[in-house]
Amino acid sequence: MQAADVISRPTLPLDGRRRVVALAVRPEIDGGRYPVKRVIGDVLAVEADVVTDGHDVMAGVLQYRHDSEREWTEVALEPAGNDAWRASFPLSRLGRYRYTVLAWVDAFASWRRGLQRKFEAGADVGVELIEGALLVDAAVVRGAPLADVASYLRGEAEIADRVARALGPELGAELAKFPDRSLATGYERQLEVVVERGLARCSAWYELFPRSTSVAGVHGTFADAERRLDYVAELGFDVVYLPPIHPIGTAFRKGPDNSPTAGPDDPGSPWAIGGPAGGHTSVHPDLGTLADFDRFVRAARERKLEVALDIAFQASPDHPWVAEHPTWFKARPDGTIQYAENPPKKYQDVYPFDFESTDWQALWAALRDVFVFWAERGVRVFRVDNPHTKPIPFWEWCLREVQTRFPDAIFLSEAFTRPKLMYALAKVGFSQSYTYFTWRTTKPDLTRYLEEITRGEVAELFRPNFWPTTPDIFPEHLVNGGRGAFESRLVLAATLTSNYGVYGPSYELMEHAQREGVEELARNEKYQLRTWDLERPDSLRHVMARLNKIRREHPALQDNRSLHFHTTDNDLLIAYSKRTGDDAVLCVVNLDPKHIHRGWLDLDLEVLGLPDDTGYQVHDLLGDARFTWRGRRNFVELDPDVLSAHVFALRRFVRTENQFEYFL
Amino acid sequence: MQAADVISRPTLPLDGRRRVVALAVRPEIDGGRYPVKRVIGDVLAVEADVVTDGHDVMAGVLQYRHDSEREWTEVALEPAGNDAWRASFPLSRLGRYRYTVLAWVDAFASWRRGLQRKFEAGADVGVELIEGALLVDAAVVRGAPLADVASYLRGEAEIADRVARALGPELGAELAKFPDRSLATGYERQLEVVVERGLARCSAWYELFPRSTSVAGVHGTFADAERRLDYVAELGFDVVYLPPIHPIGTAFRKGPDNSPTAGPDDPGSPWAIGGPAGGHTSVHPDLGTLADFDRFVRAARERKLEVALDIAFQASPDHPWVAEHPTWFKARPDGTIQYAENPPKKYQDVYPFDFESTDWQALWAALRDVFVFWAERGVRVFRVDNPHTKPIPFWEWCLREVQTRFPDAIFLSEAFTRPKLMYALAKVGFSQSYTYFTWRTTKPDLTRYLEEITRGEVAELFRPNFWPTTPDIFPEHLVNGGRGAFESRLVLAATLTSNYGVYGPSYELMEHAQREGVEELARNEKYQLRTWDLERPDSLRHVMARLNKIRREHPALQDNRSLHFHTTDNDLLIAYSKRTGDDAVLCVVNLDPKHIHRGWLDLDLEVLGLPDDTGYQVHDLLGDARFTWRGRRNFVELDPDVLSAHVFALRRFVRTENQFEYFL
Repeated sequence: MQAADVISRPTLPLDGRRRVVALAVRPEIDGGRYPVKRVIGDVLAVEADVVTDGHDVMAGVLQYRHDSEREWTEVALEPAGNDAWRASFPLSRLGRYRYTVLAWVDAFASWRRGLQRKFEAGADVGVELIEGALLVDAAVVRGAPLADVASYLRGEAEIADRVARALGPELGAELAKFPDRSLATGYERQLEVVVERGLARCSAWYELFPRSTSVAGVHGTFADAERRLDYVAELGFDVVYLPPIHPIGTAFRKGPDNSPTAGPDDPGSPWAIGGPAGGHTSVHPDLGTLADFDRFVRAARERKLEVALDIAFQASPDHPWVAEHPTWFKARPDGTIQYAENPPKKYQDVYPFDFESTDWQALWAALRDVFVFWAERGVRVFRVDNPHTKPIPFWEWCLREVQTRFPDAIFLSEAFTRPKLMYALAKVGFSQSYTYFTWRTTKPDLTRYLEEITRGEVAELFRPNFWPTTPDIFPEHLVNGGRGAFESRLVLAATLTSNYGVYGPSYELMEHAQREGVEELARNEKYQLRTWDLERPDSLRHVMARLNKIRREHPALQDNRSLHFHTTDNDLLIAYSKRTGDDAVLCVVNLDPKHIHRGWLDLDLEVLGLPDDTGYQVHDLLGDARFTWRGRRNFVELDPDVLSAHVFALRRFVRTENQFEYFL
Repeated sequence: MQAADVISRPTLPLDGRRRVVALAVRPEIDGGRYPVKRVIGDVLAVEADVVTDGHDVMAGVLQYRHDSEREWTEVALEPAGNDAWRASFPLSRLGRYRYTVLAWVDAFASWRRGLQRKFEAGADVGVELIEGALLVDAAVVRGAPLADVASYLRGEAEIADRVARALGPELGAELAKFPDRSLATGYERQLEVVVERGLARCSAWYELFPRSTSVAGVHGTFADAERRLDYVAELGFDVVYLPPIHPIGTAFRKGPDNSPTAGPDDPGSPWAIGGPAGGHTSVHPDLGTLADFDRFVRAARERKLEVALDIAFQASPDHPWVAEHPTWFKARPDGTIQYAENPPKKYQDVYPFDFESTDWQALWAALRDVFVFWAERGVRVFRVDNPHTKPIPFWEWCLREVQTRFPDAIFLSEAFTRPKLMYALAKVGFSQSYTYFTWRTTKPDLTRYLEEITRGEVAELFRPNFWPTTPDIFPEHLVNGGRGAFESRLVLAATLTSNYGVYGPSYELMEHAQREGVEELARNEKYQLRTWDLERPDSLRHVMARLNKIRREHPALQDNRSLHFHTTDNDLLIAYSKRTGDDAVLCVVNLDPKHIHRGWLDLDLEVLGLPDDTGYQVHDLLGDARFTWRGRRNFVELDPDVLSAHVFALRRFVRTENQFEYFL
């Protein structure tokens, strides 16, 4: 049974008198390998399980420092019950903070507790007072101005007076400033939190093709797009997001509706990046110049809109890099380069980069410099195309490189792939991510999916951004769903999660013809110029503007942590709420775009902060109707021909002297 | 916003072409800081989340090695869905194994999949075949005997024949032996599993005081205790556990019923360890010699009983170490040593060790050597007294030191303290632990507690050992509960968890007079000699023997992982089952020791592996009654005057040619 010859014996600790053990610090992702995410202004609540043997009193601190600081700041840990300890710190700067805990046996507090018990039990505490004096002596050595206290404890005063001095709050407060940490134990790891702008948590995106902002048959310019900005600002969006703005290759250029052959006037797909006029750091000559782009960015900023660029790391065969850096692309034995495929989709006009290139370091640096180039022009929001087809370690390095220089940079991951790969991209630095919302339509599916992505560990790092459609995706339920479907999907996207986006103007104009055989719009702007009649009377623009206004005015909708689903007795009515402090919003959405639905809600009043004995007001912020409800069970009716959803502000009644008033 | 001057930039990886990321490996405790626990013969199932970008095929291995081995053994990871991968390895040796995972992009498998798709789609695959030949060339360089295959793929044969060769199982099998791991990624940590004997998972303990095995007024000896072994063996226990067997101090010796003054003939508490005759490595002269002890251990082994010793790290004021190692004890300013206290209990006859001694290394070594001394005499099971009052880092080092020399050593933690401290002791190496079972009496309390300690992470490391009473604890519900209470608590202890113990013979003889004001038996063997009438007709010995026999014969009861509670409509009837393979045991216990209770069970038939359309037999292994039940709902009646519990073996009917038969 013995195997001592081979098996290594355990090593003695450096100092076995360190009796405290910090078992777990939270939040912590994958054993501390990845940071959690927060936004500026948040307070990070940290909890630690800390234990020691016996009955001694422990003390400890949470230590934290911003990456730019050399010294730790400390906050005392407070006991939170069941051997958990808690402290928090404010996240007042963008970037990364580290945090960990340090704890120790508090000999003085342990002694005070023992003294108090013995004294109250009537025991002789003469020796205890000397023991205390010795502890005070040690504190004096550490700098505490308490030499007189030590003398007093040893002195001739009445025992009761000396005990009173020993147990008094002044001595405790003074000694807490000079703790004996010689046997303190630190948690084994330093954990990290990435602090981003508030926009990373709450944002409304509007995607538009600048080339489709002119009149029919004419390629739009940045100047045309600039004239569209007032419209987007009126709709209340935060981010105006542009597909790639770079020169487009002509090799294998796609024609309308993804036709493999293009006519001489077809503009090609903006994702086929690069041509004689340049690559990822150039603008398409038909859109204008870099100066025009800069002007567009400034014009947007004047309207409180941020410009987001689409960063797609791939190249048209005409991209300058294809000739300049042949090792960045994988040549086949016949000398050709395999075009990109995402089966069954084929992108004959796009070459992928070869991330297994021996020249990977130069490739990584060049790709990082694409972000840096645009960030230096004032762009700080990036929608990243297909990040899941580029190596995860690349993103971890690249996004951090960019955020180190531009801590206000925000990255949206356009990954529709396996859940753990999507979460891995969030772990290595993407601020937000596209989701499966686009295909989740039933009440159970929506509920299950939202519960997965807004709770637990996932919520610590993954920020969902809900899009009802994109240029690449036009789901079945919108093809024949009519206005009811467009409206309900818009409300769901804008209220279920705090980040959402629409692909406009096709969305508000309810464009719904699918291209045969694929889940995409026909006459897709990806392949042709379009013009849009923004003033069409049936446009959903007013609903959009109303929703964005509601989102701005209601803190409850600016975060996902409080999302709660309420029971309804109709499977086609989904009800959910969010609440932040006094602000509570309840949404009820009719999931059937064609028929009236009625049903009883069974509200969780405690979650909503509502009394169950008095009435309360529900104010539909979309339709402006107000109802007085009482208790858990309340009736709703939603007619998609009128309005597919209620977005209720909840207001408790407050009784004043002679009347009822509303409490907002 | 920029802070690049101060904030360190991320470092480039050594090789950015390593595209696989291993995110999480399970089981893992506290980020790999502590090992999980298993017993010999188990198979450890390991799961890992592994992702890479894009659509390439991955491959990987679980790597493991016993601490005594230098080389890793590997098992291929198999995909388990949702980016999880799975493999397992047999735990065939005691001690520690390490395990981790290594994964890589399988270029050959990725190429094969692409080739197959293109070929089936009717595309020209000439270039693909050359690409494959290049991959085979590379495998040849790694040692694969496949040069002819590379030539064939490049050759003149028909495309279809070359494709068939490329896709054939032979080539796949051959290439799998020579994987290209040059860009493989390992998981960041090596995890550990401690493998102990089966006894660590399943054991029945019987505690007896050797000094109480003689006739009235005579101090029992090891020879007397040896004569008791047949009785213990007949009861069917695995472990006979002795309170400390060392010399007992005379200073402040306790008299009967914890009286602070002892008469000249009072034997004192065995936990007041040490006197002129020696300390922790000596035996009490009145018990016999070390040779007598050795004989006792051998006699026990002949009866398939293991001897467990009580290791209490504390000293009587007369312990030799008090004079030899004064720095191991904390002197007060007046030169005295503070005796041990566990408020409100006072142990004037016991000095604690000072683990903050500057001489801690010598103290640690001496304490370890206590275990080693007894292990070298053949004792491999240790019940450790109050481990929660000694530093956790000490135990981590000490238990590992002992198990490195004696991998078959087992340690039971006698800690009744805060849950996280109890779990911390399990994390640092205790094989088993005492629990709060002793005070959990109601159905909701028992259910909640058992669910806490038999599921999730706790079950990976904490092995509960249920004791209805100990010499230190005699709970209220047994004082007036009568036979019904003793019987039901015995059944609960023996069947709820796979480790249990009784303090005999006081338990089977239902000794129940409490000492005034404390939760302890009166006339406690801790302070005085006792004699016991083992043949008393009302003894519970037959129930004990029956229960231990049932435990041995039913694998279901030898583990806790399958414990499942079933619904009953009577709050005083608790029902639960365990199942291992075909062996299923269902227990129903009447929690009211004084009254008959009847009720309907609502069984979870799926958990029990029973059909819901045909009948099945329940055979009460305690009372030997057999019933035929059908479906979920079945009636039970338990009369504590007859038997307080059913322990049913469940047997499905199997229809044979002409009759029904039972399937065991």
